[in-house]
Amino acid sequence: MASTFEERLDRYGDLLLRVGLNLQPGQKLVISGAQAGDPRVAEFVRATAHKAYDIGAADVVVFWGDPLLDRIRVDRASMEALGEPPTWRVKWLEDLSQQGAAFLNLYAPDPAQFKGADQQRLQTVLRTAQQALRAFSEAAGRMEHAWLVASIATPAWAQVVYPELAEDEAVAALWANIFSATRIDTPDPVAAWNTHLDELKRHTDQLNRAHFARLHYRAPGTELTIGLPQRHLWESGDSGVQSKRGVTFVPNLPTEETFTMPQRDGVEGTVRATMPLNYNGQLITGLWATFQGGRIVEYGADEGLDALKSIIETDEGSHYLGEVALVPHGSPSSFDRPLYNTLFDENAACHVAIGRAYPTNLQGGDAMTPEQLAEAGANDSLTHVDFMIGSDQLDIDGETEAGERIAVFRGGQWASGPGSLDAL
Amino acid sequence: MASTFEERLDRYGDLLLRVGLNLQPGQKLVISGAQAGDPRVAEFVRATAHKAYDIGAADVVVFWGDPLLDRIRVDRASMEALGEPPTWRVKWLEDLSQQGAAFLNLYAPDPAQFKGADQQRLQTVLRTAQQALRAFSEAAGRMEHAWLVASIATPAWAQVVYPELAEDEAVAALWANIFSATRIDTPDPVAAWNTHLDELKRHTDQLNRAHFARLHYRAPGTELTIGLPQRHLWESGDSGVQSKRGVTFVPNLPTEETFTMPQRDGVEGTVRATMPLNYNGQLITGLWATFQGGRIVEYGADEGLDALKSIIETDEGSHYLGEVALVPHGSPSSFDRPLYNTLFDENAACHVAIGRAYPTNLQGGDAMTPEQLAEAGANDSLTHVDFMIGSDQLDIDGETEAGERIAVFRGGQWASGPGSLDAL
Repeated sequence: MASTFEERLDRYGDLLLRVGLNLQPGQKLVISGAQAGDPRVAEFVRATAHKAYDIGAADVVVFWGDPLLDRIRVDRASMEALGEPPTWRVKWLEDLSQQGAAFLNLYAPDPAQFKGADQQRLQTVLRTAQQALRAFSEAAGRMEHAWLVASIATPAWAQVVYPELAEDEAVAALWANIFSATRIDTPDPVAAWNTHLDELKRHTDQLNRAHFARLHYRAPGTELTIGLPQRHLWESGDSGVQSKRGVTFVPNLPTEETFTMPQRDGVEGTVRATMPLNYNGQLITGLWATFQGGRIVEYGADEGLDALKSIIETDEGSHYLGEVALVPHGSPSSFDRPLYNTLFDENAACHVAIGRAYPTNLQGGDAMTPEQLAEAGANDSLTHVDFMIGSDQLDIDGETEAGERIAVFRGGQWASGPGSLDAL
Repeated sequence: MASTFEERLDRYGDLLLRVGLNLQPGQKLVISGAQAGDPRVAEFVRATAHKAYDIGAADVVVFWGDPLLDRIRVDRASMEALGEPPTWRVKWLEDLSQQGAAFLNLYAPDPAQFKGADQQRLQTVLRTAQQALRAFSEAAGRMEHAWLVASIATPAWAQVVYPELAEDEAVAALWANIFSATRIDTPDPVAAWNTHLDELKRHTDQLNRAHFARLHYRAPGTELTIGLPQRHLWESGDSGVQSKRGVTFVPNLPTEETFTMPQRDGVEGTVRATMPLNYNGQLITGLWATFQGGRIVEYGADEGLDALKSIIETDEGSHYLGEVALVPHGSPSSFDRPLYNTLFDENAACHVAIGRAYPTNLQGGDAMTPEQLAEAGANDSLTHVDFMIGSDQLDIDGETEAGERIAVFRGGQWASGPGSLDAL
C-alpha cells in the first residue's frame, strides 16, 4: 500500500523529533532555518511544533528568515552594518543551549542564493556570523545540547536540482530524494535507522580498535596520505552520540559517514574532488589541492576559483584539513545528480573538510583548551567546508603504527574478509 | 487612467517610508509584524527593503513571526515558558532604538487568532510581552525614534472582514480599503497627506489654544464628562510630530485623530461603544462602562464580557482612561463594516482608551518621572486599549476653566462658525 505524500511527511517529522533529536518531555525545541514566504514551509514548521508538543515539549521557538532578504542585504546594506555581529540573536541561542533545548536546523539553502554577489561583502557577512556564533558552534561540537541538521524541499533549492521540471514537480522530486535518503520509504523507518546506526557503529568501533597512524588514498587524480593524531577518535552519527544531558541523538539525518580528524601537519600529496562543491550559493567544480606538511600549497578549480580562494584564504587554519570521512559509494544519499546540499552530498561519498576539526574527534578533546587541542594535532579555523572525494574507484588503506597495511575501502566500498578491518 | 494593483502597492510602500517614517539616508529600518507563511507578505517586505535601500538605509532588519504558531504556543506550551520574558528580542529592539533606527510595524492581526483560547494562558503571554517591552514602548511614546504602525492585507484578516468572498477577492477588497484609507487612490497621495496633516494640525492647535477644563459627551447611551489635566496637550499624527533626532514623522497611517489624556480621576458618567472592539482575536460587542471619580465602577458587554474583564482587570490603571480622541464621523477610514483592526477602526470614529496615557500629552511630560506624571493627572497601566464611541449623533462641548461652553463636535463632525472653536 503506497503512502501519500502527507503520510510520508508526517513520518519524516516523527523521525526528526524521535530519532534525530530524541526530544524529551519538558525540553524546549528550537527550529532555525525556517524560511519565510513559502506556505508549505510554514505548514511543516507548524506540524513539527504540534508533534513536539505531543511529545511534551515545554516550548517551541522558531527563528524565521528569508534567503532573498539575506541576498538583498549582502548587495545593498552598508559595509559597517554587514560587519555588526548579531549579538542578541546569538545570546538568545546560547541561552537556549544552556537551558538544554534541542536544536533543529532546517538546512535548505538555495544553491544559487549568492551567485554573482560581491565576494568581500559576502565574506564580511559570513565571517561576522561565524565569529559571533563561535561559542554556540563550539557548544554544539561538544554535544552540550542535542542538535539535528535536516532538510526540507524548498522551491528555490528544488529548481536548481531539477531545472527541467516545473516548480511543483521539482519540489516533489526533491522531497522524494529526501524521503529516500532518510529511509522514509522503508516499511519501518525507525527500525531501519536503528539497524543502520548499529552498522555505522560497528565500522566506527573497528576503526577505533585498528588505531591507524595514517590512511592512504588512491583514485584517479588522487594520491594522498592523511596522518591521524595519536589520540584520534572515529565517530559517526550512530546510536552512540550523547548530549551532555545523557540523551542519545543523531546530529544529521541522513548520516552515512564515519569520520575523524587528520593530524594537522600530517597530510601529503594531491586530492581531487569527485563532485561539485556548492559554497554559499557559489558552485566550485574540478576542485583539487596539493598538501605539504599538512598545508595546502597549491590548488585549483575548473569553475568557482574565487569562491575556493575565499574559503582557503579565510585564515591560516583554512589551509589545513579538519575532517576525514568514510562513506560507501552508492549510499542512500547518492542520486543521479548532486543535490547541491552538503547534508546529502557529504553522505553520498567519502570526503575531507578544510578548516576546523571537531574536538570530539580526540580522546578527551572536548575538555581541552585550544592550546592543548593544537598540541594534540587538531586544526582550528573559523570555517569548516567539506568536499567530496569518493567514487567507485577509490581504494583506502589504513597503516598501523607498526607499518602494517589493512584494506579499509576497495572500489568505494567497505573492504571485507581477510586483510580487511573484519580480520582485526 | 486607473492604476494597477502593483502600482498602488508601490505608491503605498513609498508613502510608508517617505511620509510615514520619513526614512533618512544612513538610518536603519526595522520591519516587525512580518508574517512568515504568506508569499505576498514576503514580497511586500522585500519590496519595502529595496525601497529603503534606495533611500539610503544602512540596513533593514526584519522580525518575522507566524500568528498560527503564536496560537499553537498559547494553547500548548508550558505555563512556565509562557511567562518567560522574550529578553533577547527586547534587547535587540532597544539596541536598535538607541541606534536611531526607524520602526515599521506591519499591523495585520487575524481578528479570530485567539478565539476560544484559554484566558489565563493568553493573558500570561500578553502581560509577559507588555512587561518586557515596557521600556521600548516608553521610548516610542517619548518619540525617541521614528515609528509607524501601518497595515497590509493578509488572508486570515481579510476573510474575517469579508467572509462572503473567496480568499483572493477578500484580500483584494481589504487592500482597496487600505488604499482608500491611506488616500493612495488620490492623484497625489503625498500632497493629499500633507494637506490633511495640516488640517489635523489646525484642529489640534485650536484645541490647545482653547485649553478646556473638561469635555461633555452626549449621544444615545452616552452621558459623559471627561476632565482634562491642567497641563494637557492635544496631539495628532500631524506634520508636527518629531523624533528626538529632529526628524518629523507620522506614527500611524492612516491617522485622522486629535487626542489628549483625560485627568485620571476626572471622568464621570456612562459611555457606550458604537463599534465592536476586537481584543487579541476576541470580539467585544455592546461594551459600556460607568465612571465615578475616573474609575470604572460598572461595565458590561453583549458579547466578549470575559475579554473585557481581562482588559479592565489587568491592573489598577486599567480601571481608568488614558486617552480621549476626536475623529469626524465618515472619515476615509470608515467603511460599510468595521475592519476589526484598531488602526482603521480608531480612525473611523471618536474614541477613548482604557489604560496607559501618553506622557507626550502633557506639557514637558516626556521628561517627567512616573510620580510626576501621576501627580499631573496621567494614568498608568500595562495596557492601552481603544474603544469607539463616535457616531453621527455625537455632540461634544468643551468647557473652559471659566465655565464657558464651546461646541467642538455637532452630529459627529467638527463644529464650525459662531460658538465653535473657529471663533476662538
